[in-house]
Amino acid sequence: MGLFIGGESMIVVMEPRATREQIDAVVKKIQEASLGTHLSVGVERTVIGVVGDSHTKELLRQSLEATSGVERVVPILQPFKLVSREFKSDNTVVDVKGVHFGDGSVAVIAGPCSVEGLEQIIATAKAVKAAGAVMLRGGAFKPRTSPYSFQGLEEEGLRYLAEARKETGLPVVTEAMDAYQLQLVTKYADMIQIGARNMQNYTLLREAGRAKYPVLIKRGPSATIQELLLATEYVMNEGNYQVVLCERGIRGFDNYTRYLLDLSAVPVLKELSHLPVIIDPSQGTGKRKYVSPMSRAAVAAGADGLIIEVHPDPEKARSDGPQQLTPEHFRTLMSELDPLAKALGRRMQAPLLTR
Amino acid sequence: MGLFIGGESMIVVMEPRATREQIDAVVKKIQEASLGTHLSVGVERTVIGVVGDSHTKELLRQSLEATSGVERVVPILQPFKLVSREFKSDNTVVDVKGVHFGDGSVAVIAGPCSVEGLEQIIATAKAVKAAGAVMLRGGAFKPRTSPYSFQGLEEEGLRYLAEARKETGLPVVTEAMDAYQLQLVTKYADMIQIGARNMQNYTLLREAGRAKYPVLIKRGPSATIQELLLATEYVMNEGNYQVVLCERGIRGFDNYTRYLLDLSAVPVLKELSHLPVIIDPSQGTGKRKYVSPMSRAAVAAGADGLIIEVHPDPEKARSDGPQQLTPEHFRTLMSELDPLAKALGRRMQAPLLTR
Amino acid sequence: MGLFIGGESMIVVMEPRATREQIDAVVKKIQEASLGTHLSVGVERTVIGVVGDSHTKELLRQSLEATSGVERVVPILQPFKLVSREFKSDNTVVDVKGVHFGDGSVAVIAGPCSVEGLEQIIATAKAVKAAGAVMLRGGAFKPRTSPYSFQGLEEEGLRYLAEARKETGLPVVTEAMDAYQLQLVTKYADMIQIGARNMQNYTLLREAGRAKYPVLIKRGPSATIQELLLATEYVMNEGNYQVVLCERGIRGFDNYTRYLLDLSAVPVLKELSHLPVIIDPSQGTGKRKYVSPMSRAAVAAGADGLIIEVHPDPEKARSDGPQQLTPEHFRTLMSELDPLAKALGRRMQAPLLTR
Amino acid sequence: MGLFIGGESMIVVMEPRATREQIDAVVKKIQEASLGTHLSVGVERTVIGVVGDSHTKELLRQSLEATSGVERVVPILQPFKLVSREFKSDNTVVDVKGVHFGDGSVAVIAGPCSVEGLEQIIATAKAVKAAGAVMLRGGAFKPRTSPYSFQGLEEEGLRYLAEARKETGLPVVTEAMDAYQLQLVTKYADMIQIGARNMQNYTLLREAGRAKYPVLIKRGPSATIQELLLATEYVMNEGNYQVVLCERGIRGFDNYTRYLLDLSAVPVLKELSHLPVIIDPSQGTGKRKYVSPMSRAAVAAGADGLIIEVHPDPEKARSDGPQQLTPEHFRTLMSELDPLAKALGRRMQAPLLTR
Repeated sequence: MGLFIGGESMIVVMEPRATREQIDAVVKKIQEASLGTHLSVGVERTVIGVVGDSHTKELLRQSLEATSGVERVVPILQPFKLVSREFKSDNTVVDVKGVHFGDGSVAVIAGPCSVEGLEQIIATAKAVKAAGAVMLRGGAFKPRTSPYSFQGLEEEGLRYLAEARKETGLPVVTEAMDAYQLQLVTKYADMIQIGARNMQNYTLLREAGRAKYPVLIKRGPSATIQELLLATEYVMNEGNYQVVLCERGIRGFDNYTRYLLDLSAVPVLKELSHLPVIIDPSQGTGKRKYVSPMSRAAVAAGADGLIIEVHPDPEKARSDGPQQLTPEHFRTLMSELDPLAKALGRRMQAPLLTR
Repeated sequence: MGLFIGGESMIVVMEPRATREQIDAVVKKIQEASLGTHLSVGVERTVIGVVGDSHTKELLRQSLEATSGVERVVPILQPFKLVSREFKSDNTVVDVKGVHFGDGSVAVIAGPCSVEGLEQIIATAKAVKAAGAVMLRGGAFKPRTSPYSFQGLEEEGLRYLAEARKETGLPVVTEAMDAYQLQLVTKYADMIQIGARNMQNYTLLREAGRAKYPVLIKRGPSATIQELLLATEYVMNEGNYQVVLCERGIRGFDNYTRYLLDLSAVPVLKELSHLPVIIDPSQGTGKRKYVSPMSRAAVAAGADGLIIEVHPDPEKARSDGPQQLTPEHFRTLMSELDPLAKALGRRMQAPLLTR
Repeated sequence: MGLFIGGESMIVVMEPRATREQIDAVVKKIQEASLGTHLSVGVERTVIGVVGDSHTKELLRQSLEATSGVERVVPILQPFKLVSREFKSDNTVVDVKGVHFGDGSVAVIAGPCSVEGLEQIIATAKAVKAAGAVMLRGGAFKPRTSPYSFQGLEEEGLRYLAEARKETGLPVVTEAMDAYQLQLVTKYADMIQIGARNMQNYTLLREAGRAKYPVLIKRGPSATIQELLLATEYVMNEGNYQVVLCERGIRGFDNYTRYLLDLSAVPVLKELSHLPVIIDPSQGTGKRKYVSPMSRAAVAAGADGLIIEVHPDPEKARSDGPQQLTPEHFRTLMSELDPLAKALGRRMQAPLLTR
Repeated sequence: MGLFIGGESMIVVMEPRATREQIDAVVKKIQEASLGTHLSVGVERTVIGVVGDSHTKELLRQSLEATSGVERVVPILQPFKLVSREFKSDNTVVDVKGVHFGDGSVAVIAGPCSVEGLEQIIATAKAVKAAGAVMLRGGAFKPRTSPYSFQGLEEEGLRYLAEARKETGLPVVTEAMDAYQLQLVTKYADMIQIGARNMQNYTLLREAGRAKYPVLIKRGPSATIQELLLATEYVMNEGNYQVVLCERGIRGFDNYTRYLLDLSAVPVLKELSHLPVIIDPSQGTGKRKYVSPMSRAAVAAGADGLIIEVHPDPEKARSDGPQQLTPEHFRTLMSELDPLAKALGRRMQAPLLTR
């Protein structure tokens, strides 16, 4: 048995016919990065371990991959840090004005896809609170696939959200799509949402990291788990550790649902990261009739919460009507989730009494 | 308001610059198929409704799509029949020697990925029965990606399965990959499994349809919901209505799980079809640690059952060790599922008393 | 044969058991939108045509989908306008300081992934020009998956690009990720790149639409063709019609390439839209060795141009080294493309003489 | 620099908190498989190299992945052998009655989707030969998604194919879906096609391996490159080395094409394997209008040939009419491919003179 005390951060697999010169060039490049090498010469392949860790290892990895004679480079350590369980082993609990994500309870955020008027948002806020929601959602700036769709009430919408919070006490989460909107959102709301289409908008992620506000970051429809965690790393790297992750459906190939809700992301994310994970079954399925079964499934899979679209009159909604629940339907769902949470040894988080 | 008494089975959308001759050709073709037409002439597009249904409408659809000037053909009616809720509105209950799929209870099938020996399968059967499984699984003919992997004990494996049934009373499901194997499977087992890789093996589907045995059909990793239902239609079209559908993970783009378990397939399939739907969280995730959360989620989403891989010593398994549970782990999972089912107003199906 | 003079913009398919009341509600909703209806009552389904077009039809579509009794709504007209062949039937030629995209010739943009220094960018610009490139690329603001990767030289990089243009006469394209960067990019460069990760950054798209600069818009890795065209519609809707589309690889499930280069997007986009389409084989495959075959294939598929990463020393590149060509490799590729273009009845566009 | 003479076939990455006992268990398991170990102990992770190769290494890999404390196992050597470039470095040339695949020329197979009658197949064979096709295709056994679609003329169709060969001298390729059909196919045709839906039908692959007939194996729509090569390994492992690989479109998420034609598979497969690679642009796009551009692109990407659907009257075709070319359209395409091949330093293979 060969024994080596080292600690490899990545492993370079050379091509079958790599020459001595190519191997030497790889070794030299690793040593120039002030890292050690560990050479294993085989009949078919030579394998070179990179010994030691470095904040420039990502650059080294790319450089090695670009080197002639290299077949591939296998990273041993995860590319993310602050977000990882290895960095922080216990669950992070994110506190949004008394609402807790990650403490073992199930926190339900609800509200309309878009804020459409003061009356609409206040009525919805009251209804969802009555049914047990602990936070209010509602889009004021709407990312719409088509420029001809309703784009949101903008600052007016934010003011209405603040009014609804005043009426119900429910903290508010709403999306910002650029630095200007983000500033407005932090003025009126309690949690900043980074939408799926902006998951890799690094300017925005950094701004959200600098804001001293909790952030809800949604996975992009083609984002790998690793890309979601690295996007989150952008926020945390600016010093903001109050982040909740959200799976909201990835791109699938079947048309019966709008997106493909990836519930296995719940246990995978909770294993890799200490951050809370919630599920958006409304966006994730795009159809009202699938929201209840997927909400139940999300809670059973271990999600820390849900974000559900509820509209007083979905048929009249100015966006995403097909996936919004009526208040009545939402009430029924909440009444189903309560015994379910208990059966799982958990509990539904209740709206704060003081409200 | 235009009013028309007709009943369109499909709608032909013409290209923006379709000529009068092209429109006439489409109309003629529909009429030759003894179906009516319903022409709607607009400024930008002409739309032609095909009025009436016919068993040759699939052929007509393809012919129309191939006709010049046609942009696309939109089917109005579903392409499947026997499998559909429209054909049969109440749930089908599939009875496998007293085990029921589709009656509202949760039926759990468990057992090793592969049958590896008599002792192994009997020990597993006893252990899973003790934990509450109602049926035994175990592969005798194994579809393996590599020809250098273990291919199963074949008929010997089937004999061992029959022995294990004798010992425990648990009915047995096992996979057949061709007509010869299918004949053997029906000799020893109680339910025929059509594996994901053979979901569109039409020869096999027809053979399974002719066998008077219950069939478990697994969704292929790139199969749409519609393709799964049409594959099932092959079985039912031969007169065999005892079919259970199984989602076992589709092809995703993330490597943290082996496949992407599509739990939204549960409510979608149960809406479109009257057949029972079960989930395979072992194949669907490929990793032991995700089996429990995804099993719970499957039940919460409304699955009629689960099929779970359990091995007395997964580290020594001859196939798929990483995803097999130990009997102990399985017992814990079953004890979690019981209160969960109750909270959902359902119950775990228990092994038959007479066994 | 039913005949109806109308012109349907969408068709509402009712559920099999839709009631008379539900049908009436749909009809009423359509009429309230000042559009006509065209009812077709069948044995199994009722189908309702929406007659007439309207700028609010997208909202109506969503509202109808949210209406009870509706199974689905089938749009007949495309949701995009300005970008479509129906709006403008002849090819748009985008002129970037004398470089033409869409005139039938093949225009090749080349340069490093990132601008790393003045010397590097000038050397690359000279080398790619000598080999036949007509435009220079190079990232000054880099969207990187990890916050720990090199993020670009920012304004300094833009200044170097402008220097390289002065030296070689090659117009410059470079990416902007937010409004502030966009302003800087228009100060130094000749064409604004909207990167794949920002394809649905609507704030940025609108800003690019307001700038009087040509725009290169890259398809996001999970974006459908329709989403790409709708994103482009955002730019054009602000009055900027100088847009080049770029396919750069979508999310696939195989790891031998980094992304899955979708070359069928070339004929599909050129059929649906009048805008030029180019291909990025460097991002699209992620590996140097596949750049040449996929460049040839792109030209053969009808692409109006290519954007290729070239670095004087890819092994030392600060980003994406594995996919960058050496100047020598690029020269060889260009010498292969020349006879290929001729064989297709096309020509390689040459760098302007005055440069 | 650590130096080690060994030759690792795989590398075991332990979990961050793996215990000494877990590491020992892994080492013991490797040694029991008569392979060496090479331990590298780091601060964050321990990495264990498996030294030496063995035909049971696939089993060992799975066993190690199932072992507690193991995070993942990274294979260093490819899992396939006979199919690989490492096994045979020069290109395999497959000879089908004088037609050569893999000799640098472009071989075009053409014919209808389905054999529909004697006249139809003879007319098509003559037309495609006149245009330059060197082999005839045509389905006698049709794998159809729906049981209600035309399933082929079966043995009668094979007889017609043999007649068409007699008339034109074109060798014939046609699909078999089970052992019985395969026997008939070898009686009448010159090359066995394994269709995409049967790519992992291992019974069929083994039968094809035992037949002394050239095999055309199509990539399944969700198959990775590695799975395609392992499926081919089943054929070769039975002693049949006359195999041509075919990419025919994978499952994508966009509906403008039926499948997503993955042209990067051409250079990837030709790098990994010595076998010829052809492209099916008809299945791969599903639409006639995209067949020409994608055929040109396939040749430019380096494909050894094409298989194209041609029907005398596509609008009357009994299957896949929308994607079949008319003889005239095919003639035009062939006349475009000729100069293209020459520009690439290749040539179109011509039908044999003796025919």
